[in-house]
Amino acid sequence: MKEIVAIIRPNKINRTKEVLDALGFPAMTANAVFGRGRQKAILGEVTFDVQDKNLCKEEGSMRYVPKRMISLVVPDEDASLVVESIMKVNKTGQIGDGKIFVCPIEEAVRVRTKETGEDAIL
Amino acid sequence: MKEIVAIIRPNKINRTKEVLDALGFPAMTANAVFGRGRQKAILGEVTFDVQDKNLCKEEGSMRYVPKRMISLVVPDEDASLVVESIMKVNKTGQIGDGKIFVCPIEEAVRVRTKETGEDAIL
Amino acid sequence: MKEIVAIIRPNKINRTKEVLDALGFPAMTANAVFGRGRQKAILGEVTFDVQDKNLCKEEGSMRYVPKRMISLVVPDEDASLVVESIMKVNKTGQIGDGKIFVCPIEEAVRVRTKETGEDAIL
Repeated sequence: MKEIVAIIRPNKINRTKEVLDALGFPAMTANAVFGRGRQKAILGEVTFDVQDKNLCKEEGSMRYVPKRMISLVVPDEDASLVVESIMKVNKTGQIGDGKIFVCPIEEAVRVRTKETGEDAIL
Repeated sequence: MKEIVAIIRPNKINRTKEVLDALGFPAMTANAVFGRGRQKAILGEVTFDVQDKNLCKEEGSMRYVPKRMISLVVPDEDASLVVESIMKVNKTGQIGDGKIFVCPIEEAVRVRTKETGEDAIL
Repeated sequence: MKEIVAIIRPNKINRTKEVLDALGFPAMTANAVFGRGRQKAILGEVTFDVQDKNLCKEEGSMRYVPKRMISLVVPDEDASLVVESIMKVNKTGQIGDGKIFVCPIEEAVRVRTKETGEDAIL
């Protein structure tokens, strides 16, 4: 199994989850994070979310951009499909489109049923 | 070493950490996340946390459920004990009990002492 | 490639990112988390962040300490440099300096350009 972790634009999360759901991957975890890539030069344009002012304030130099992180665990053979689907939805061609990482997962367990392995994730 | 990542119900986190502490695993990281598994059908019943309205609002279709994610790094030989203990505490039999993932960790360092490997995590 | 995950004090994040930027690693993800290590005995001194009261309240026993988690993905040969640099900036010698973990990453993709591997992270 692989964990697919995508750091994407906040306004792309709905479309991303719709596509993954349609492909048969409804289970995921989402989180608000701050990312910083190559886009430092354009950060003067970024409007920070008032709700996140606690974290922003602390950063001081305001060089982090609000992002959403989604994570899902899929069978090995589905990893490239999931990566390519997330790329398709999230590519605008502008700096800040985000990144996707693929990490190994050794075991998965569904707590309710004690199912393990791919039975736990599909 | 293994990282054990558990996505659990918010109201189970205290009991989970008590059990892990009693077993000799006091160190962990906790985080508020949104999860979505097979429970889409029951989401009309979910009451979203006002504190998290920023993320909820953005999701629009309100299909994510507030969860807590805990992560701890343990020696290989303790991984199954930790997984089974988390399952024991978190299994209600209802949809939404959560999932547990086991991931490889190649190195760990305690910053204060520069200890590495299992010395850094125990 | 390796993912370097560091759980550090909130007041160390600016200096940490400055050092990593200067070393040629500008891209990272940051997140507010709660950590618990060996420092349970000193937690009476911890002042919890009002912005995080939602999570604190839920914990009840108030044994978690606000931390920042940063994550960056680097080529294999840079992993030890990054780990040692983060240690250098974050070591105060006091309990609560944090931990660093090194995890394997199998693939990375930059969404905008479809670059993969080390091209995606540098």
